[in-house]
Amino acid sequence: MDLNLKTSVLNVQEPLVLKSGKTIKKYELTYETYGKLNENKDNAVLICHALSGNHHAAGKYDDEEKPGWWDNMIGPNKPINTDNLFVVSLNNLGGCHGSTGPKSINPETKKYYGSDFPIVTVEDWINSQKKLMEEFKISKWKFVIGGSLGGMQAFQWTIQYPDCVDKCIVIAAAPKLTAQNIAFNEVARQAIMKDPNWCEGYYLEKNVIPNQGLALARMLGHITYLSDDSMKEKFGRDLQKQKLNFNFDVEFQIESYLRYQGEKFGNSFDANTYLLMTKSLDYFDPVKDFGSTLKDRLKKNNSKYLVISFTSDWRFPPSRSREIMRILIENNKDVSYSEIDSSGGHDAFLMENEDYFEIMRNFISGD
Amino acid sequence: MDLNLKTSVLNVQEPLVLKSGKTIKKYELTYETYGKLNENKDNAVLICHALSGNHHAAGKYDDEEKPGWWDNMIGPNKPINTDNLFVVSLNNLGGCHGSTGPKSINPETKKYYGSDFPIVTVEDWINSQKKLMEEFKISKWKFVIGGSLGGMQAFQWTIQYPDCVDKCIVIAAAPKLTAQNIAFNEVARQAIMKDPNWCEGYYLEKNVIPNQGLALARMLGHITYLSDDSMKEKFGRDLQKQKLNFNFDVEFQIESYLRYQGEKFGNSFDANTYLLMTKSLDYFDPVKDFGSTLKDRLKKNNSKYLVISFTSDWRFPPSRSREIMRILIENNKDVSYSEIDSSGGHDAFLMENEDYFEIMRNFISGD
Repeated sequence: MDLNLKTSVLNVQEPLVLKSGKTIKKYELTYETYGKLNENKDNAVLICHALSGNHHAAGKYDDEEKPGWWDNMIGPNKPINTDNLFVVSLNNLGGCHGSTGPKSINPETKKYYGSDFPIVTVEDWINSQKKLMEEFKISKWKFVIGGSLGGMQAFQWTIQYPDCVDKCIVIAAAPKLTAQNIAFNEVARQAIMKDPNWCEGYYLEKNVIPNQGLALARMLGHITYLSDDSMKEKFGRDLQKQKLNFNFDVEFQIESYLRYQGEKFGNSFDANTYLLMTKSLDYFDPVKDFGSTLKDRLKKNNSKYLVISFTSDWRFPPSRSREIMRILIENNKDVSYSEIDSSGGHDAFLMENEDYFEIMRNFISGD
Repeated sequence: MDLNLKTSVLNVQEPLVLKSGKTIKKYELTYETYGKLNENKDNAVLICHALSGNHHAAGKYDDEEKPGWWDNMIGPNKPINTDNLFVVSLNNLGGCHGSTGPKSINPETKKYYGSDFPIVTVEDWINSQKKLMEEFKISKWKFVIGGSLGGMQAFQWTIQYPDCVDKCIVIAAAPKLTAQNIAFNEVARQAIMKDPNWCEGYYLEKNVIPNQGLALARMLGHITYLSDDSMKEKFGRDLQKQKLNFNFDVEFQIESYLRYQGEKFGNSFDANTYLLMTKSLDYFDPVKDFGSTLKDRLKKNNSKYLVISFTSDWRFPPSRSREIMRILIENNKDVSYSEIDSSGGHDAFLMENEDYFEIMRNFISGD
């Protein structure tokens, strides 16, 4: 069967009151769908994206070299099987791939939002994503699925709207960031905000972009996405040229890789969106946020959970996934946990891996 | 007894041919000594410093708030006991605390060296440090001791000058950097070199300093010096103010700590020196450098080794120290290895710890 890829924009005219107390009066969400919604409207899957992700998870447009970021996972006969599932994948509010965000025009000022775009949290995202349910008149997602920051959204969905999720897959995530996680985010933010092109966040108005700061942030991010072992396998101490230069040009292949990745990202992603996404990570802490009501909320849902971690992930190592599992077990939820042997680091959640795909396939096709 | 702290400058008029092929015609090394050299000249200890270290390892000058960086380790009745040892601690060539380096005046141009200062390697440092032996007419160091990059120097001494070291203590080090280690260094370098005040390294001439780039580099460094656990103990997710601000000011205490540390360092250390030190780390690879001659060189020395690592160190974890140990064992050297239980991360080598200090004391006072 065909992937049946469609891109759409949901135009929400209703105000969204954010956790910060601020309000976004109206907004657009850009999303893709794959497969078909059945008559009972009970085969819908929501895909939540990670820090630098977007709505384009699967399929390939004519002008693209590479398909969407999770094309190995979503499609006909793939683990998230579009032959019988209807998959919705959005660009989050605050993003830079079509949904309303810092590089959109603020209707009140007729200028780019820039730094005036309010900080959005995972909680706010779930509220905005709920509009997609209403759009399709879906009363319950069959699955909410995400990796990393996307996994946090999937987890949060089942707490925030306990009636709305049948099954939840939380991959390579954590129930909250550690001080070290926050520290990495803070260095990334400072790199962006110290770029002379930053202009207090109003760079688009001045026709510049803080691409060098964003490149640094991305380089740093990349180190935390890869495992020490995968870097060793990929690059080791291999030299870019035959011999040492004894200067500050690229000496080792890893340097060349990081510079290239940084530059590419710095020129394509929006710096303000990157800042927002890191804050949303920092703030995520549902156990604290929902406090004594967490138990009641979790009691209300009948969701089945699958929690997956990867052995070499040091950004959100298996121990963090086990924390999520423990919270769920303590609340008598139906939870399966799987620790996948992989050298791929945090990025393993995006990579093809027989065990991982088999576990996803079984959970998704099971009852 | 007294520490007997003295600061001196060694003026070397002989040219130093560097590994890169370049030559430094003459240079100065600033160093401190503690304790007294005995008549037989067989109680001398060389302390090698780490990335951002300097010669001021012990004691306290009148205008100082804090004593030298290893004052807990060096002094009367301390593990490196100045009651019977004569301790020499230098600022490495290329440093910014008195020894000739990028912020010195280049005698040929009468301007700051800046980027014209050549890249120096661990091998070059050992050659320059040998001049201190000659200065004191010492034929053999009783001990060469260092942590991190300092430990690499201690290890290298025993290979490069197999006759010159009686005992060698290598703490929290590695036999070479991994791709991940190099990657962190590269992000730090890019942060400095993308600072608009960088001026291709000739910033002092222009009366500016790339303090923001250096601050970023230091913030990043700090993350790798602390363990995830020590950050959790120190900061956790504690807020700087009572409640969340939902803006980009400091939100969590870890952010405040990093910004403070970064700013302080950015305004006090020399950026070019920082760059040089990171390159020296990247290049360090004695097994490759000495190749088939390594075995012969190690055979020639009668050095006893103590290799120490710390459980929570993820910059140079215990596995890296065990690599050093294995190289030594394969070459039939006399080596003791100790893995110290500590939550202090890489910085643990600078911290007081009963087990660590006891092991140091026993090895140093033993035969």
